[in-house]
Amino acid sequence: MADYKAPVKDMQFILENISRMPQLAALTTFEDATPDMVSAILEEAGRVSAEVIAPTNSVGDQQGVRLENGKVMIPDGFAEAYQQYAEGGWGSLQFDPEFGGQGLPYSLSTPVMEMWQSANMAWGLCPLLSQGAVEALYLNGSDALKNTYLAKMISGEWTGTMNLTEPGAGSDLSAIRSKAEPQGDHYLIRGTKIFITWGDHEMAGNIVHLVLARLPDAPAGVRGISLFLVPKYRVDENGELGELNDVAVASLEHKLGIHASATCVMAFGENAGAVGYLVGEAGKGLACMFTMMNNARLAVGLQGVAISERSYQQALWFAGDRIQSKAVGYEAEGPILRHADVRRMLMTMKALTEAGRALVYDACASLDFSHAYEDKALAAKEKARAAYLTPIVKGWCTEVAQEVTSLGVQVHGGMGYIEETGAAQHFRDARILPIYEGTNGIQALDLIGRKTLSDKGVVAHILIEEMNITLAEASSVSRFAAAAAALQAAVDVAQKATTQILSESADKPYLPGAVAYNYMMMMGTLCGGWELLRAALAAAKKQEQGENDPYLETKQLTALFYVDQILPRHLSYAQMVSAGSDSIMAFTDEHLASSFN
Amino acid sequence: MADYKAPVKDMQFILENISRMPQLAALTTFEDATPDMVSAILEEAGRVSAEVIAPTNSVGDQQGVRLENGKVMIPDGFAEAYQQYAEGGWGSLQFDPEFGGQGLPYSLSTPVMEMWQSANMAWGLCPLLSQGAVEALYLNGSDALKNTYLAKMISGEWTGTMNLTEPGAGSDLSAIRSKAEPQGDHYLIRGTKIFITWGDHEMAGNIVHLVLARLPDAPAGVRGISLFLVPKYRVDENGELGELNDVAVASLEHKLGIHASATCVMAFGENAGAVGYLVGEAGKGLACMFTMMNNARLAVGLQGVAISERSYQQALWFAGDRIQSKAVGYEAEGPILRHADVRRMLMTMKALTEAGRALVYDACASLDFSHAYEDKALAAKEKARAAYLTPIVKGWCTEVAQEVTSLGVQVHGGMGYIEETGAAQHFRDARILPIYEGTNGIQALDLIGRKTLSDKGVVAHILIEEMNITLAEASSVSRFAAAAAALQAAVDVAQKATTQILSESADKPYLPGAVAYNYMMMMGTLCGGWELLRAALAAAKKQEQGENDPYLETKQLTALFYVDQILPRHLSYAQMVSAGSDSIMAFTDEHLASSFN
Repeated sequence: MADYKAPVKDMQFILENISRMPQLAALTTFEDATPDMVSAILEEAGRVSAEVIAPTNSVGDQQGVRLENGKVMIPDGFAEAYQQYAEGGWGSLQFDPEFGGQGLPYSLSTPVMEMWQSANMAWGLCPLLSQGAVEALYLNGSDALKNTYLAKMISGEWTGTMNLTEPGAGSDLSAIRSKAEPQGDHYLIRGTKIFITWGDHEMAGNIVHLVLARLPDAPAGVRGISLFLVPKYRVDENGELGELNDVAVASLEHKLGIHASATCVMAFGENAGAVGYLVGEAGKGLACMFTMMNNARLAVGLQGVAISERSYQQALWFAGDRIQSKAVGYEAEGPILRHADVRRMLMTMKALTEAGRALVYDACASLDFSHAYEDKALAAKEKARAAYLTPIVKGWCTEVAQEVTSLGVQVHGGMGYIEETGAAQHFRDARILPIYEGTNGIQALDLIGRKTLSDKGVVAHILIEEMNITLAEASSVSRFAAAAAALQAAVDVAQKATTQILSESADKPYLPGAVAYNYMMMMGTLCGGWELLRAALAAAKKQEQGENDPYLETKQLTALFYVDQILPRHLSYAQMVSAGSDSIMAFTDEHLASSFN
Repeated sequence: MADYKAPVKDMQFILENISRMPQLAALTTFEDATPDMVSAILEEAGRVSAEVIAPTNSVGDQQGVRLENGKVMIPDGFAEAYQQYAEGGWGSLQFDPEFGGQGLPYSLSTPVMEMWQSANMAWGLCPLLSQGAVEALYLNGSDALKNTYLAKMISGEWTGTMNLTEPGAGSDLSAIRSKAEPQGDHYLIRGTKIFITWGDHEMAGNIVHLVLARLPDAPAGVRGISLFLVPKYRVDENGELGELNDVAVASLEHKLGIHASATCVMAFGENAGAVGYLVGEAGKGLACMFTMMNNARLAVGLQGVAISERSYQQALWFAGDRIQSKAVGYEAEGPILRHADVRRMLMTMKALTEAGRALVYDACASLDFSHAYEDKALAAKEKARAAYLTPIVKGWCTEVAQEVTSLGVQVHGGMGYIEETGAAQHFRDARILPIYEGTNGIQALDLIGRKTLSDKGVVAHILIEEMNITLAEASSVSRFAAAAAALQAAVDVAQKATTQILSESADKPYLPGAVAYNYMMMMGTLCGGWELLRAALAAAKKQEQGENDPYLETKQLTALFYVDQILPRHLSYAQMVSAGSDSIMAFTDEHLASSFN
């Protein structure tokens, strides 16, 4: 059984108890986000994701995409699924009503987006990147551009893409070579972009490419990069589609996973030049794109949670059905989920997935608060909080997805290695997540550099203070006192590691880069445990108030499991951080090659 | 560049300094294993693996295998590669000269086998399983069977398979249903076996299937299982091939990786019944098969090392070629291996691979000593040592292969996700390793149950005493004193965890199963660090004696890196072990399902 059922109960619980949806709905901006509205949206999205989108996942993987006569051919059911998505208004939840959006919180669109990604990650990349493009255009575009493009992108009539990478410019975007030549009211764009997700398809009427390129007189490096909007079909002053622009798909990549997502090599301006329009100021392209990238990074972390959830569900159903061996304490053979080691795997999958979910929703909610608070100091604090959590969300939740989807294969035993079972697809699909939207190495450098060293650990400290509040509360509840003590010890370890990095980095230039990854993993492990403990406290309160849904007990057991069986990882990460850069940088290139000489 | 270069220098160093090849060659049984012989074999195997086998790896993955008119069609170059392998006598190194073997140590055939597996793991499974079949037949078969089959299997003229799994009998072989009906001097075998690696092909003249089945009057459970030899082509009294036996390939599996290895559903006796011969005593089939399985488990651990090595080499070449960004301390853009985080990934790959290599060779050498020692007590001690290390080798080295091949993808960034790059193939291929020949969950139970609890930790303690000897030596060398102290702390932690399990398991029936995996990973992490430190001490001695190959310095730096950046993982594993089974077993089935109700 490879079906998907949206975990609406957990989503709703997290929204209410972790990511502060009630407090958000109390603000004027988001007053429509009532409990009834939240519930109705999640239930209906759950239905669409399970009934319409999820059935396209396996067939999409098998059929893949292909290029025929320059057109991208997509798997069966994808266009119909996209149509239902667009017609349901699912792409418009969090956007400005001025352009046809519904003005709801981003943190409410987040669980909805999670569902699409669980249902079919390859397909889901099209809406995901379109929303990033909307965001970038909304924040940076001229009124004219916004009036022409935004409403149709928000409605889902048109989709959007993100064109950054070039063959010689991957993690280092300063090396971008694509050119933009001024031509009257527009520019002519020329260059090759690679790894362009959903760079072409016929699911929507038009595709709006956001493209990084250089003006003729631009300086070298990142300050010479500008952002341009390049439509697939040109759009006239009435918003009607005109002729095809000079944009072509040169080829499609043959990938490990997400076979059904078209990863295009895009050729801009091979003939007359592709007509494009400047978005934002000249030379500020990277900054404009980063407004898109930051949301996309949160969304990729969310994809990690989504594919973990899908993998977990599949493993859970299998482990309940597969009969093999007598488990300890049983007289007869039974389902393998009775075996302690299988249970350990399933619970690791569950606990990591739910920890990640809480963390992503929480980070997204901070962005909502940063928009909705009138008090500027409060708004800035939330914005900084979201910015701090973003690399943790992207980095940790996508590393978690590697572990969870691999466990998903393992629970199936030999059947897990057979493609028809479906577990392997999640494992293959998930492997892109630590790579795209900034590799996890880049995320780790962002966390330790821009998010920690550059503010001398102020925001990190604020987050740790939040944790201390939770821990103080938990330590007074007898069921959680030991867990609170374990988390407190982990917080202390993290603080010590942070202090060490802050004090030593000036003298040890290699230190931040060498320890960044393990530092990020340590913070992610800690944040995950903290979020689960918050959830457990909320669940315990509801139980005290007389609610008796077994979900509430499960939530508490999940937190206790995490503290026992996952949190201890922080010890290793912290010790690797404290070991510093010496043993890493002691190697020369000669040493690396010396086995082969 | 996706080429492979056999790490002959490291192999030779490990043989000499870790796995005691000089001591082995001092025993009469293995007096032929002189340094010159060892060197000649490794050099020539290195050449064949790099020039003949490795070029078939990528094409094999792309073409895969397919079933046409009941025959398995194999990728280009596979048959020629097999022919060169057989003609070179590579399959005969460690076997008894009475049947055409070369009588060399198993621990010398081990690096050679590693090379085949690095070069092409899918292809390499055919020799690997053939050698397991030789072993099982040699130890358990009647003289008549051995005289008819062994020499041709050892020469590589014929190959062998291992038929255990059935649709309802995977980890639990007691559920096997295949039947064997006595018929004069032979038996008629009927039943379906799944996941049969290289169950059919045309690379060799015949295929010798070893098949578990039940005699008509056999009791239920494992004691009713016997082992049978079932040839693809029947063999007459003169050793000439006769008619095709009633053995057919029903279908091939479509797998995540090792696409070029034929994973067959085998139908025995669909018509007249497949002619088979009893191997060993009736009812002792599982014990006979286990002689094969134990070697196969070491060989799968070796595959973990082999694919890690291949993945590491590919990542290292890429990281040396790919220019991106200025690294700290450099004025211009340069290869990405200058970046500390990339270096961390590469060195993690290198250190884990070399630690695994030393551990596997060491375990295999104990088997050699157990055969070569005339003193029975010494032989028994070595046999127990090998038996103890086997689940660690299989479990830990294959988990390591997951990490290393995933890092191999990550080092490539976006290119890693593109199949043509080749990094993804290693990642997909490696994923079978924690599953087959007994899942790693089964390995962990074996380690904690049969190998630790059942002898009250005696062999575990002997190994720890070996470690203490190394640590005493290392602590007197100033360069290694700190590393020795760190390893000593880890040994103490492991001892404490072992003591806890020994004392608590009687009262806590779930404990061994719940903590087994983390216990195995803890022991593997510790053993890996110990082996690298042994190697470092040996390298330091050679340096003192005036040798100045940079390899010697690298070996020491690798051990120091491991102690700093990998050994700390033992802390997490130990803490998860000490947390016990409570939080795992607190979950009921209702709890697991409660998010979806």
